[in-house]
This record gives sequence, C-alpha cells and structure tokens, in this order.
Amino acid sequence: MASRSRTSLLLLRARISSTPCGRSIRPLAQLRWQSASSTTTTEGSEGVAKGTTAPPKLVKFTSEAYPEIQRDSRFAKLTEKHVKFFRELLGTESAVIDGVTKDATDDVEAFNSDWMRKYRGHTKLVLKPGSTEEVSKVLKYCNDNMLAVVPQGGNTGLVGGSVPVFDEIVINVSRMNQIRSFDEVSGSLVADAGCILEVVDNYLAEQGYIFPLDLGAKGSCHIGGNVATNAGGLRLLRYGSLHGNVLGIEAVLPDGTIVDDLSKLRKNNTGYDLKQLFIGAEGTIGIITGISILCPQRSKATNVAFFGLESYEKVQLAFREAKGKLGEILSAFELMDANSQDLVHKVTKNKRPLEGEHPFYCLIETSGSNAEHDSEKLEKFLEDVMENEIVSDGVVAQDQTQIKALWGWREGIPECLGHWGGVYKYDVSIPIQELYDLVDDTREKMDKAGLIGDTDEYPVVKVVGYGHMGDSNLHLNVATRRFDKKVEKELEPFVYEWIAKRNGSISAEHGLGIAKKNFIGYSRSDTMIALMKQIKNLYDPVSFPPLDDQSALD
Amino acid sequence: MASRSRTSLLLLRARISSTPCGRSIRPLAQLRWQSASSTTTTEGSEGVAKGTTAPPKLVKFTSEAYPEIQRDSRFAKLTEKHVKFFRELLGTESAVIDGVTKDATDDVEAFNSDWMRKYRGHTKLVLKPGSTEEVSKVLKYCNDNMLAVVPQGGNTGLVGGSVPVFDEIVINVSRMNQIRSFDEVSGSLVADAGCILEVVDNYLAEQGYIFPLDLGAKGSCHIGGNVATNAGGLRLLRYGSLHGNVLGIEAVLPDGTIVDDLSKLRKNNTGYDLKQLFIGAEGTIGIITGISILCPQRSKATNVAFFGLESYEKVQLAFREAKGKLGEILSAFELMDANSQDLVHKVTKNKRPLEGEHPFYCLIETSGSNAEHDSEKLEKFLEDVMENEIVSDGVVAQDQTQIKALWGWREGIPECLGHWGGVYKYDVSIPIQELYDLVDDTREKMDKAGLIGDTDEYPVVKVVGYGHMGDSNLHLNVATRRFDKKVEKELEPFVYEWIAKRNGSISAEHGLGIAKKNFIGYSRSDTMIALMKQIKNLYDPVSFPPLDDQSALD
Repeated sequence: MASRSRTSLLLLRARISSTPCGRSIRPLAQLRWQSASSTTTTEGSEGVAKGTTAPPKLVKFTSEAYPEIQRDSRFAKLTEKHVKFFRELLGTESAVIDGVTKDATDDVEAFNSDWMRKYRGHTKLVLKPGSTEEVSKVLKYCNDNMLAVVPQGGNTGLVGGSVPVFDEIVINVSRMNQIRSFDEVSGSLVADAGCILEVVDNYLAEQGYIFPLDLGAKGSCHIGGNVATNAGGLRLLRYGSLHGNVLGIEAVLPDGTIVDDLSKLRKNNTGYDLKQLFIGAEGTIGIITGISILCPQRSKATNVAFFGLESYEKVQLAFREAKGKLGEILSAFELMDANSQDLVHKVTKNKRPLEGEHPFYCLIETSGSNAEHDSEKLEKFLEDVMENEIVSDGVVAQDQTQIKALWGWREGIPECLGHWGGVYKYDVSIPIQELYDLVDDTREKMDKAGLIGDTDEYPVVKVVGYGHMGDSNLHLNVATRRFDKKVEKELEPFVYEWIAKRNGSISAEHGLGIAKKNFIGYSRSDTMIALMKQIKNLYDPVSFPPLDDQSALD
Repeated sequence: MASRSRTSLLLLRARISSTPCGRSIRPLAQLRWQSASSTTTTEGSEGVAKGTTAPPKLVKFTSEAYPEIQRDSRFAKLTEKHVKFFRELLGTESAVIDGVTKDATDDVEAFNSDWMRKYRGHTKLVLKPGSTEEVSKVLKYCNDNMLAVVPQGGNTGLVGGSVPVFDEIVINVSRMNQIRSFDEVSGSLVADAGCILEVVDNYLAEQGYIFPLDLGAKGSCHIGGNVATNAGGLRLLRYGSLHGNVLGIEAVLPDGTIVDDLSKLRKNNTGYDLKQLFIGAEGTIGIITGISILCPQRSKATNVAFFGLESYEKVQLAFREAKGKLGEILSAFELMDANSQDLVHKVTKNKRPLEGEHPFYCLIETSGSNAEHDSEKLEKFLEDVMENEIVSDGVVAQDQTQIKALWGWREGIPECLGHWGGVYKYDVSIPIQELYDLVDDTREKMDKAGLIGDTDEYPVVKVVGYGHMGDSNLHLNVATRRFDKKVEKELEPFVYEWIAKRNGSISAEHGLGIAKKNFIGYSRSDTMIALMKQIKNLYDPVSFPPLDDQSALD
C-alpha cells in the first residue's frame, strides 16, 4: 500500500564528523528521503490501525479468550420491548443499530471489536444518541431496567475499554459532534464529546489556537474519549495534563442525572472540583457528553530534529540538555529504540532519516512564537550535544512536509508493529533512569523462554521500546506473529511486578480497561482501591457500566 | 514605617512622545524611584498583612458578628480527658497549646483570628502534630469523640476558612515542614504540607527549579494550604493550575484513614484520580499532610514592564498583543486600576513608576531561557503597543531590584488597602470583556448609598479593582474605615448576583470558607451542590471538619 516513490523529501542534515578535536556541525548537506506518514494512513499510530498491513482476520471473542470473565447475571437480556423504547426515544433510524429483532451482524461488528483486534464483544444493539438529554434518557432507562452498557467514542482505545465483552448495549456518541462555542480572547472551547480530535484541532488552527493534546489516533478519536481516558499523548510535555486544561465537563450519571459543569472560567474555586473525577474514569461513573477546555495559542514556529544516539545514558543526557537549552519552546522529546525503527523501515521500506543504524533515536520538537529565536536556540542545543558527543548523528526538518516525515518515524511505530499479527502493548511510567531497562529485561525473558525469533515457529517477532521520554512514559510493545498464551504468561505479571518494584505506573496514559483490570494493585494501594470502589458505588450503586467494572475494582 | 530614602532604584524608562505621525519610543531616560516592596514587608500581599499599617484592634468574634451561625450541638465540648489524650499522643510540650485546663488566651489568640482581622474563633486547644501518623490518630480520636476541628496551615486565607468559629480544635500542620525528596531530572518534589511556600521555592531555586505557584503570602503560607485551597496566584498564566501540576497527595480522612497517593509520576492513569478531590476542598474532606508536585525549570531571564493605559478597552488590547507577541514567555499580566495605585502611593509615599496618573496600569512579566531573545520579544511588543497608542506610558525594569520594585506596586495593594481599617474582598472570575464593569458598578452603588467619601463619617474609603487579568480573575476590594453592616448589605448579594448573571465565579482562587458558604448557589447549580454534598457525606458522615461546612453545602 505504500508507494515508495510518491513523495520525496528534502531534509536539512546536521551531520557530525568525528575529528581529533571533537565533533562539529559540518556544512549542512541535503538528503533525499521517503516519508512514512505521507505514504501510509496518518491515523495508524498511537491508537488507530485502519489500513494496517496485517491481513484481516476474525477476532476471537473476549469471552472465549478470557473464560474467567463471567457475565453478571443481574443484568437483564435485551428484548424487543427494550429496542422499541430506544427506537421511539431516539427517533431517527440511524440512531439505532438493531441486531436484537433482526440480523445486523455486519453492521454491529465494527462496534464490537477494538482496533487492536484483541477484544471482541457480543453486542446486538448500538445506540447513537444525538443530545445530552437523549443520553440521559437512555441511561436512566438502562439503569431502571438493569441493562448493561458500554460507552464508546472513537473506539481507538488500547485496553479494551471501549467495546463490550458480552451483550452490553454500545452507547456511541459519534452523532454528538458539534463545536458549541469558542472564545478568541480566552481560548476556551466548548464542544460535544463526539467531536473528532483532528477536526477540532483544524478548527482551532483557523483561529490561531491549538488543542492542548495530540496523539496518533487524532483522525478517529473523540475529544470526549480523550478526556474520559485522560489521554496524554505528544504535547503533554508542553501543555500539561487534561486535569489542568479541562475547564468543565457535561456528563450523564448512570441514573440519568446530567452533571452540568461546563464552566469556561480558568479559575473557579467554588466547592469540590467534581469534573476531575470524570477525567480518566474511563466512563465507569458516567458518560461525558461535552467538554470545555483551555486552548493555548498556536505557535508560529515549529522545528523538529531527529537524532541517533549510542546508549540510553546519552539519551538521558540529551533530554537534560534539551530541557535546559530549549526551555519553554520544547514541545516534545520522544524516544525510539533501534528495533522500533527497524520495524518501521521494514514495513514502510522508506529510506531512514539518518545514515547507519543507532541503538537509540530521539525526536525533538520545539514550538514557539518567534521562528528566528527558536532556530537559534535549537542550533545552540545542537552544537552542544554534538560537541559533547551526546548524539551521534542528526537531522533537522526544513519545512512542514519534512516535519511530518520525521514524525512518521515515531507515529508510524504502532501501526508497523501490527504488521506481523497481534501486539502486546504496555503503556507504563517508570522513573526515567530505569525507563529502558524494562525493554532489555523483557527481551531477555522472551529469549530465555525461546519465544522470540526470525522464523514462523517463534510467536514473538520483536520486543521494542519507544515513548514519551519527556513524561517518563514508555511504550513497551511485543510484536507477535499470533496471540499466544505462552507469551502472555511470560509477560504477566512479570511486567507489572517489575514496574511495581520501581513505584511506576502500570497505566501511564492508556487507562485500565479490561486489559489491566486485575492488575491495578500493582500501582495502587489497598486503601486507594477501596476509596475508588466507594466512588464507583456512589455513582453507580446498581453496578452499572461498562462490563464488570465493579469487579475490576474488586 | 516606610523609609522613603532607604532604597533608590534606576528604572529604564520607555517613554512615549505623541507626535503628529503617531507615538514612538524615545531614547530611554532614566528615572529615580522608590521601591514599595523594599521598604515594607514583602509578606503584605495577597494573603498576609503582618506589619500592616492599620492599628491593631480587637477583632469581633465571628459568632457575634454572624449570630445566625449556630454551633452544631452534636459536637462534644472539650474536657480535661481529651486534652490528656492529645498530650500523651503528641508527646512534646510544644505540640499542644492548652487553654482548656489552664489559661492560654494569649498563646491561642494567633490561631483564633485570621490575618484580615475579620474572623475570630473561641478555640481553647491548638494541636501541632509532627507526622502524618499523628494527624491520623488525632483525627480518628476526634471523629470517635465528636470533637470538631479546623485544619490550619499558614493561616493566610482570605475567606475565614482557616480559623475556628466556636471551640473547634485547631489542627495546625506547621511542625510538618520537611522537604522529603527532589528529583533533579524530572523536577518532582515531595514535601510536607507545612512547608512554607517561599522556603520551598528558595530550595528549588538552588536546584534551578521553581515552584509552579507564586503568591503574595509566600512568606507565610503553607504548600499544603495552597493545594487545599487550590491557590491560583501570579504564575497560573504560565504554569497552569495545581490540578495539572500536583502529582500526588498524602491526606488523612476524618476517620483517620491515610490516603497515600504520593505518586512522583507525571502520568498515572490507574483508576480514579482521587487526589483531585482534595485540591480545593479547603480541608473539608480531609487534611493534606504531604504533596508531590511537578516543578518547572527556573527561567534564566525575567523581564518586567509597567504601563499606564487610558481605558479598560486598551488594557484588553494590550493583553491580546502580549499573548500574541510574547507567547510562551509571558508569565504574568496583572491589572491595577488608578484607585489601587493611589492607595499604594498614599500609604508608601513612594514615587510612582510613571509620570502622571492613568486610569489603568498593567504589569507584564516575561520569563524565558534566553535573555536576549526575551528582550527582543519584549521590545517588539513595546514598539507595537506604543505605535498603536495602546499604552500611554511605560517603564521596563533593568535589574532584579527594579523588578521587585515594580512588583511592589501590584503586590503591595492588599496591604495598603488595610491601612484605614477593614477590607471587603471579592475574588471573582468574570468573562474578560466585562471584568472591570463590576468595579465601576460597585463604586456607583456605594456612591448612591452615600457610603463612600474622603472623611471619617463615610465608612468606605475607596472601591478598587486589580487582579490577574491573564486569568480573567478580578479582585474587587472595598477599603473601609470600619466594618459596617450597611456596606455589607449594599455589597451582598449585589456582587454575587452581578457575577451570576455573567456566568462568572464568586470564588476564583480564594475558596469559599465561611465568607461565601451561603453564596455557592450563585456559581453552582442545585445538581452540582447536591453532588458535592454526596462527596462530603461520603468522607465525613459524622459531619466532621471545619465549622459547619456541612451546612455550607446545604
């Protein structure tokens, strides 16, 4: 699918020559280079793999893959009567995909499976309410009739939290996709939960603003889902977490109560900040239907540099230098290991941005209000890391196309990982000093168990590490030829125990979902888990959505 | 108290000449100027008025000033037995100030009254636990024995939330004042709640970092109190709110449960983010005993400019220009009206930074990693606002002393306001376009009621407005010669109704405390208030701390 000759790019190359008196920046030669992102779908990244190179195949039902998960018998089975109610309530034909009273297997399928093709549910009913009031009426009815539901946004999640396991009703908010208001002076945006991130960001770009969150799945993911899962992504280093940027939330509680907290104010200290509870709750205590968020002004200048480095120690040095030298304009510091870049290279067949191979790669982005100043800062930083032999080789993008191309080597990783089959994905926070050790240790474990190799008999293709170095956030990914229980048994609880020992987090930015529901204890104390149960019970006393989240906290 | 000749400062002056072809920056003349902040206490600002110029006087008991507030009879009276328990538990003599079994009126007094001298309680017992475990045991005992308590940090609050009304036990955390750890790579700091903000910031300065919060009371306020009240302050424009920066919290619930959530990780999406509930809860659902917080690198360069402007419309234009031209280095945009600067001038007798008087003044601060770049950006901005006649006159500080001096004209306002007697303080968020209208309307109301004037018969001295323009956060202050119920009746609920009409917030950054407990309905819907009550009841079912906060939410 990737046409190699479609786009060719010019990259400004900051080459390093090793001379007796140290390294220096050579007069910048130019390099022709292929873009990954311009030849494959840009959605294929941290969350979406539409158009993935892996052959489509039937996804195993979650209920079969994990037979230990049992349907909660307190929940009612869907009947014709229920469907009739929803039909009448939502009115339009397109708002109800009904596999209860008729066969709608094909239509329902996309809502049953996650993009990783790891989880698959048995739902027969998808509801697409068009307003907060409709969500409220749907939830109240479900609550009163003990019907289990699962809220769904762009369905780009990585932990199986946005798809049903059994026959839960899918409540998909994609029809709620309007921008409600934007204030050009303050930068506060109010929008429906079902707005697609990229659509909102494009709208903001026209006003000179930017959404304070960016992630690979931006072409499909919903801003409501972003907030519900407290997505981190690529700009957190610069703009901070959603807990700081979200100004208000509109949500519907399990009993249908509408939480109307759509403040546009930057400061509002009147009572408890309840909206915070919904940020990162993964839809387990209510469905977010609208958000207000503070958007920063869009930077006039963006620079991207891409480096090769000899060791993880040097990566850490480069990070410290970047923080010091680039200061307020540093907007991303991304780490990619050799294996991850190998995979991207193998799948896309694009020419690598650097000559030769390196154990580690970093992508640094700056964004600021003055292009000249930013370039000068970046140059000073480059001089420094080269003179001190911190980086081995590097290139700097010269225009928007090159910037996209370099980002392709980072954002293209998740998609390329799926090339051979399934991927075991771990999204973790670890103190920065030990961040990469987890990848080495996991690879060694796979090796010892005889599970990793270049030929078909081995289930594991590669163990790779990449992620948001600036946030101490590693994505440990195990690319496999097929899902294999032996691999899973080697990985879990090993990975979680490894992280717990270092007081890390087993879920940095992806959430728990169904994938990690039994592992929360590795990152949270019994007291904290008990307090979370209290909150769950407070808002959802009849043990409401999605799946058996209640047991997730047991 | 202010010695006028003690310090003289040189200010680089960017003067504007009105010529037929528009305004231009004249060759910069230099000006000798007196610093307010160097001659008065630097604490006298947004929260502390130690050494205020107002004559000390006996503060009226809150219970007498507000007879409608009744002691909750469910709470027990303190006995000798209770005191004996606390003595044995806390061990050291200094941890218990006992006015129950003996006379300790003088020792207890400082803990009974707030710095505004507006609220005064009747406590006879002050406890100073030295560890989280001790806080836990104290709270458990109080909970079991129905003893009311009020948590207290630096006691710099402005809404009467940190002092008792009746005989509540004061739990003061000042003995818990240790920095627990600091990570130089990630910038995460872990410290006791009782650490003084300025002490922590000075410690961080040595490491090249900065606390992501700054406010006038920094010399006295505690970081635990800052988090408990979700303090906003001067750096919010740049570093965002505490909801984004606080990484973890250690707190003790009313029943003694220790919430151990002191994560040092920037990203941790494992379950509900419960720490958020304690940020801004004003100690009503637990006492914060420790925090971990993400500290940004300290900027190498800081610039401060001070302007005079003709109208509030021009202030808004200047703000937009500052956001555009200064972008990522803009760290403060503060507004001061003519009245506020008149008062500072009258009290300090310092020479004004600008020649002539102006209806409005702004203080702009930039901080960045490159002094040269920052100066260039600031110059461009100055050229622009002068050429376009947005500002009428302006100066730029040339060194650290001058920076402090200029800040003195902003930070000195609250202290100077107290010069004649009491101050009615309103800390509100209003959409920026209408921000200053509230001050004009309030002044007009005072005038119509015949309450404002230059002589002693009038209770009101001046109605002034100032605040954090960058956050749409206005401080409406009414300086009085004496607290007068007639003034209060004109102000309330007028101010709150005015704000509610504009969907503003009646408490932007100061919290509700006892001052606004009955007014929450102006900023929150019945549903939201009901949900807050639920949370209060969840954590404090026996209607525990401080005062009658339960009724505050009724």
